This record gives sequence, structure tokens and C-alpha cells, in this order.
Amino acid sequence: MSAPTKPFLLYTGPTPNGFQVSVLLEELRAINPSIDYDVHKIIISTNVQKEPWFIKLNPNGRIPVLVDHSRNDFVVFETAAILLYLVQHYDKTYTFWFDPDKDPNNYSEMLQWIFFAHGGVGPMQGQANHFNSFASEDVPYGKKRYLEETKRLFGVLEMRLNNRDWLVGPGRGKYSIADTKAFPWPNHTVRIHKYAGVENLDEWPAVKAWVERNEARPATQLGLQVGR
Amino acid sequence: MSAPTKPFLLYTGPTPNGFQVSVLLEELRAINPSIDYDVHKIIISTNVQKEPWFIKLNPNGRIPVLVDHSRNDFVVFETAAILLYLVQHYDKTYTFWFDPDKDPNNYSEMLQWIFFAHGGVGPMQGQANHFNSFASEDVPYGKKRYLEETKRLFGVLEMRLNNRDWLVGPGRGKYSIADTKAFPWPNHTVRIHKYAGVENLDEWPAVKAWVERNEARPATQLGLQVGR
Repeated sequence: MSAPTKPFLLYTGPTPNGFQVSVLLEELRAINPSIDYDVHKIIISTNVQKEPWFIKLNPNGRIPVLVDHSRNDFVVFETAAILLYLVQHYDKTYTFWFDPDKDPNNYSEMLQWIFFAHGGVGPMQGQANHFNSFASEDVPYGKKRYLEETKRLFGVLEMRLNNRDWLVGPGRGKYSIADTKAFPWPNHTVRIHKYAGVENLDEWPAVKAWVERNEARPATQLGLQVGR
Repeated sequence: MSAPTKPFLLYTGPTPNGFQVSVLLEELRAINPSIDYDVHKIIISTNVQKEPWFIKLNPNGRIPVLVDHSRNDFVVFETAAILLYLVQHYDKTYTFWFDPDKDPNNYSEMLQWIFFAHGGVGPMQGQANHFNSFASEDVPYGKKRYLEETKRLFGVLEMRLNNRDWLVGPGRGKYSIADTKAFPWPNHTVRIHKYAGVENLDEWPAVKAWVERNEARPATQLGLQVGR
């Protein structure tokens, strides 16, 4: 195997979890050209992510996984942990996050919305996708349960975004990794809306505008192409 | 309403999410007697957590929620965000966590396992509980799906704990909020094992020993009584 030529190696695929990391890497690269990464595409339908070599990287057998060659090949799994790792080490000016020491309340609110997306929208919309598109049998109870829960969670985001541009920060907010974390899920329902059963975002106008606001960022657009 | 007499107010109930915070508060109190809190019990079966006054505290309508009177009544929701908030402000000696600046790799590993528990074990075991104990109809597909996923996730914990006492830290590890976060879920299967359909933890001996190691901590024992 040849020596790595770029600082990071990203194992990823074109999923809402994968996009979160490639979007942040592109956003970081836009402010710091020394940020660059190789992509190892993982085709999750082949279950390569359950093979022993991948389990050594992430015992949970899921993408994305980041290897940081510039920090002794340190390995990070779990999407949100990768986002927090990247800003801690490579965004020292707090462009995309909040200073834990000097701005602890916004930092905490950022974590609250990251965990809301990580434990709520992500897993529940994932189940909606499963019952609507991948289940080996038709299970109306499952379809209904997770479609309703996904919609409820979009409603929580709608309340928050009602008078804001971004999830966290004073006034109308500041773009941060809370947005990077959360927007790919509702975005996914628009791009591939049959997956979860949500036809469009019209019911949640503030969420719809926020998803479009994220998608309009040039670096984010690049990140959303990675892993395809 | 009388003035608060204790530094924190915790809205909670006797669930794996609730216990995480009450356990950490008791662990903190054991090293710092000035930590103390009032408990507002939330009976989730009454849906009081969906009422407007509670939605103002947590738009997601779920327990636990922490109010910090000593920091201008700052409100924190999402269990894992509460744990990180508490150690940042009230564990300055890094007894229960890792210094992000001086020990960034263990800090990141701690976050990785916190997110693993928050986005994996928690939501999936929650679905197993639902289909096994609370669903309005018998859905064998759902029962099987979430029982299998819960068991798979316990298997991931087993791999990690195979030669460790605690999830994160050098050697056999150091007790941290990664453990506080993760152990109440497998612990729940033992205490109320009919919920998820996991009869016992015999299949995962390292997980079983780790759950018992957590439960044996005197402060943790106190925390596991809160909200009942």
C-alpha cells in the first residue's frame, strides 16, 4: 500500500450520515486549503463494513469512519464524534462551532441539537426508511409508527427554526456543526422521498428554508457529492 | 412558587435516560458535597412532558431536563448533552471525563462511545421495548428486528469490554461518563427484562460484569433510585 498523500482518509457512502462528514470537510477546506482527504467508498449493500478489517476501525460496522494521518492515524467513528473531533483540532477560530470556555451556553445548545439529531431524527427516519423501502415484508404498523415519529421530529425542528436561520447562536443563529449534523436527514426525504414516506417539506416551511439554506452553501454542495 | 433551595432542578423519571443524569449527579455529589438537586418527577405515561410548559424546557417533550439555578437557570435537554454540561462546569479535575486539551484522544474516544450509546443502544432498545411491551398490536417483524439489533449492539459493547473494566481510558480504562451513559440500557434489560425481550446478559459476560461494576458504585446506587 502506498503512503497516504492527503491528511485524512474518509470511509464513507452517500447516506445522511456519510454526507455530514464530507460536508464538514469541504466547509473546513473552504477556510483552510491544507485540509484534504482521500475517500474510500463503502458500498453498504455489500456489507463490506461488517468485514473484520472494517470492524477493527469501527466495532459497530458502520460508516463514516475518519482516519487522521496527521495525528498518528487516529481513528474516529460515530458521525457526530467525527464532527466534534474535526472542529476541535482543525477549526481553532470557532468558525463552525462555539468556544466551550468563552461561550459555554451556545456550545451546550449546539451539543443539545447535535444529540437531538443523533438520537432522534437519524435513528427514527432510518427506521421509516427501513419499513417503507427495505423491509422484507409489508408491516403497516412499522410504516405508520416511524413516519409519524419522523414528522413529529421535523415539527420539533420547525419550532426551533421558526425565527432562525441556523439551529444555534444568538439572534437568527450562526452556521455550526449542529446544522451540518441535522440537515442531511430532512434533505434526504426531499432527494429520495420515497425512502421514508415523507413526500416533501411543505408542512415545515422553516425546515424547508433551512435545508435549502444549507444546500446553497458552495462547500456543502461539494460535500453532498462525496461517496456517490 | 418558593425560591429554589438547591443548585439544580432535575425533571426526570425512572428510565434508562433519566438514570444517566441522576447517577452522574450522585457521582459528582460524592466528590463535591455542594452539588445538590431537587427532583421534579415526570410520570411519562400521563404525557405531562408533552404539555406546553414542558415543551418550553425541551421542545422534544422528553425527560430528562436539567435546570442550573447557579448559572442563571440555564436549561439543558438531551441526556448526553446534560452529562457533558455537568462535567464541563462541575468536574474541573476530570474525575469522570478526559481533558479535551491535554488528553484529546481519550476525550474523543469517550465521545465516540457516548454517541454509540445515544444513537444506537438507546433508540434501538427503546424500539425493542415498544414492540415487546407497549405496541397496540402484535408485530412479530418489529419484535424480531429490534431484539436482534439490541443483541448485536450488546455484542459491540462486549468486543470493547472484553479486556477492560471501563469503556474508555488507558489500560483497563477509567470510569467516565461514557459508562454512565451506556450501562443503564443493558442494566434495564436485567431489571425489567421482559421489556426488550432480552432475558439476561449471560451471552455477553464482559457487559454483564461491567453493568455489575457500575451498579456496585455507591453513588450510582443512589442515582438509580431517583425518580421512582
